Amino acid sequence: MAQLTDLGSIQSLLFWDQNTMMPPHGAAARADHSSTLELITHERLTDPEVGRLLDALEPWAAGEDPDSDDVRLLAAVRRDHEKAVRVPGALAAEMSHADALGQQAWQEARAAADFSRFRDALARHIDLRHRYVACFEASEHPYDLLLDDFEPGLTTAELRPLFATLRDRLVPLVGAAGDRSRPRNEGVFAGPFEVEAQRRAIVDVLEVVGFDEDAWRLDPAPHPFAQSLATADVRITTRYDLHDFGVAHYSALHEFGHGLYEAGIATALARTPLAQPVSLGLHESQSRLWENIVGRSRPFCAWVLPRLREHLGKALGDVDADRLYRAVNSVQPSLIRVDADETTYNLHIVLRFELELALVEGALRVGDVPAAWNAGMSRLLGVEVPDDAQGVLQDVHWGAGLFGYFPTYTLGNLIAAQLWSRLVADLPDVDERIAAGDFAPLRGWLREQIHRHGRKFPPRELLRRVTGEDLRTEPFLEYLRTKLADAAVLAA
Amino acid sequence: MAQLTDLGSIQSLLFWDQNTMMPPHGAAARADHSSTLELITHERLTDPEVGRLLDALEPWAAGEDPDSDDVRLLAAVRRDHEKAVRVPGALAAEMSHADALGQQAWQEARAAADFSRFRDALARHIDLRHRYVACFEASEHPYDLLLDDFEPGLTTAELRPLFATLRDRLVPLVGAAGDRSRPRNEGVFAGPFEVEAQRRAIVDVLEVVGFDEDAWRLDPAPHPFAQSLATADVRITTRYDLHDFGVAHYSALHEFGHGLYEAGIATALARTPLAQPVSLGLHESQSRLWENIVGRSRPFCAWVLPRLREHLGKALGDVDADRLYRAVNSVQPSLIRVDADETTYNLHIVLRFELELALVEGALRVGDVPAAWNAGMSRLLGVEVPDDAQGVLQDVHWGAGLFGYFPTYTLGNLIAAQLWSRLVADLPDVDERIAAGDFAPLRGWLREQIHRHGRKFPPRELLRRVTGEDLRTEPFLEYLRTKLADAAVLAA
Repeated sequence: MAQLTDLGSIQSLLFWDQNTMMPPHGAAARADHSSTLELITHERLTDPEVGRLLDALEPWAAGEDPDSDDVRLLAAVRRDHEKAVRVPGALAAEMSHADALGQQAWQEARAAADFSRFRDALARHIDLRHRYVACFEASEHPYDLLLDDFEPGLTTAELRPLFATLRDRLVPLVGAAGDRSRPRNEGVFAGPFEVEAQRRAIVDVLEVVGFDEDAWRLDPAPHPFAQSLATADVRITTRYDLHDFGVAHYSALHEFGHGLYEAGIATALARTPLAQPVSLGLHESQSRLWENIVGRSRPFCAWVLPRLREHLGKALGDVDADRLYRAVNSVQPSLIRVDADETTYNLHIVLRFELELALVEGALRVGDVPAAWNAGMSRLLGVEVPDDAQGVLQDVHWGAGLFGYFPTYTLGNLIAAQLWSRLVADLPDVDERIAAGDFAPLRGWLREQIHRHGRKFPPRELLRRVTGEDLRTEPFLEYLRTKLADAAVLAA
Repeated sequence: MAQLTDLGSIQSLLFWDQNTMMPPHGAAARADHSSTLELITHERLTDPEVGRLLDALEPWAAGEDPDSDDVRLLAAVRRDHEKAVRVPGALAAEMSHADALGQQAWQEARAAADFSRFRDALARHIDLRHRYVACFEASEHPYDLLLDDFEPGLTTAELRPLFATLRDRLVPLVGAAGDRSRPRNEGVFAGPFEVEAQRRAIVDVLEVVGFDEDAWRLDPAPHPFAQSLATADVRITTRYDLHDFGVAHYSALHEFGHGLYEAGIATALARTPLAQPVSLGLHESQSRLWENIVGRSRPFCAWVLPRLREHLGKALGDVDADRLYRAVNSVQPSLIRVDADETTYNLHIVLRFELELALVEGALRVGDVPAAWNAGMSRLLGVEVPDDAQGVLQDVHWGAGLFGYFPTYTLGNLIAAQLWSRLVADLPDVDERIAAGDFAPLRGWLREQIHRHGRKFPPRELLRRVTGEDLRTEPFLEYLRTKLADAAVLAA
């Protein structure tokens, strides 16, 4: 298991390097290197000896504390082993091949803004997912098995009403608050700002927030991401836009949140399959918490503004903390998910969830996806999609065969708000701390409640341990309503 | 074999990242990742199935062209497999552990400038080398088996007279030409020069010489090295000294030579054990050829000076090409191998070779190594060693258990001169080409004669194919004498 964990970390290095450092012509060889690691990992994980060892340990585990690291480790290994052995090698290889081809077809289709070039690849992905689902014992809904790869234990039956509520509440909220006519962040970060000045400002902020230069790196990347190779080797990235410092600033805070989760996993779990974030939803809750709940809060705006001014100088103009706070919380319905604000973002996800479900259920034909997409954008966000590139083809996920992944982005928002409610009860002076630039209590709480556990407790159990609740929409909706009113985006 | 080659490339990435990008606290986890890759590689290489496959292919190979890629591939795999299976896992683990401990002991001893703290680790290394040698069929000299790991097929009997000749010829040459009183490069590169200006100058030069920014990287590193992850992913490094541009300039040319070798291996050999340089001596011949034979030549100095002046400006002063040529070919006996000039360098290596031989033969006791070192430095270079840190403890190699490695540095010089004699016969206008900044014919010759073959032909055979000769000292000595006279370092 230590070796398997090492192989996972090495795979992370390959990914990080490919997206930050690798010369472009290195891509073909990199695909080989990555496949080889995946193949060796799969061989070792599905080794029948692993199954025998797990069986042999069952009687021992039955006599141990069910909450001990070792008993939980066994459960995690059993889950990984059993999921891996269920899928025949030939199908796994076919899926992996289709994922690579699908990405290529998606890229070509997007460049041509023509969905028809992607249709066959998408149909093949859907077919392969049905064959994948058929490898497992039947679940209530076939989509459950896709969700489970990213959010273990989450069901379609649980998710559907949550997303329906979000849709029903957010559509009128966006209608009341949204304003497409204003520029992003109302122009407060329009600069122009030199990349090097932006980088210095970000590092200066992150070093107070919790970035440790002996154990972290910050690099530019066109699609920002975070990877950790160990708790003491955390690598985050951000993207620079000369005319919107907000892009780099909030990307960096977002990826910092991911990085802090990985940096905070207990060293006792190192080199075990428990030494990783428990799900994409929980992972995203950490990034959203730092990007939005902290980073777009009144006290953070007040604290950060003088620091930004040191590096960005006159180009920040006469913005004051109140204006900054209002600007970075504006609501602007738009076409592109990754550019969306905190409020409208979730409607982009609701649309993708509805379409994925309909595709998996067979209620939507692949050829009808663009029309359904465009109708959904109009219905949910009131925007008209000019072409497929800015519509159904905007994200890589479906090209790469990732179905069941999108919902975790919005789960991140829901979970972050649930955790924050609990955190404020435990740390009633958190706003004053943030305003004073003292982030240690906040980091400490997150580490104690979430980070240190890694993958020890399944997501549902972890959320219950911390908040006493299951997934809910109300804390997030209440958080949004309160902030939008406070920021005068909504009438009070 | 493709997977084994991939694992080797991934190991290269781990090394490159550790020495350029990794946050310092990532070192402990990196050691685990690297061990895991090594262990998996060893498992696969020693798999009895590999031996069975090799045996099964013998009859087929006997009927094929003995110079075909496939037949040579079998020979290389057989060599690797048989060397690996000879050494029991327990001994390999013990050596690997001793190498790590030895490096640590060496670091502490060097910091304290006290050999006695390293003595036990060195004694243990020597003992382990004897046990390692005993795993193989007896060779004429036990040191042969150590040499063979770095320079396949080279013997002590062959090396001893070559190095004796070098010693006997170089000592008087250094006596006649050496001048300890002048600064390095006679101060022509003393600057000071900003790092960014140095980097731009180097990239500008390398891009003409053969660096392709779509397939190569250049990064700073405290101990410069080159690594390739594929022929289209070559990474070189250099070291910047504000007060000596020569450090970065010649390091970059040196590592470029290594990189060009790896970039030039035939794509037909990709993902096979033949897709790597054939030996350390041949590898070093390529770096020395670009650093010294090309980089310190009259035509190169004339071509490069105006380019350097564009980036380094006034700080280069009124140096002209003739003065630059003389300055970068000065001979200065000194204490430290890595700072030594092209001529004295080889006496540093002769000393290490003599001491390694005496240690392996038992003629020198470990406790007597510092005295033997200091006496050798006095005898060979006429310098007095002030302390162990600047003497016997200066290099990491013995700490890391690398015996039989040092001679390959000087082999690189000998082979480079032998290749150059042949190259000049084939490309009589090479000097004019270099003066005109046209390096394509030179690169083409090296690729055709050396690079493309990778590890297909053993070193001795490759050298004979290209030059018709075995290893010789005379071309190198003649090259040195001619240049030192031309540069007016020696009386003509």
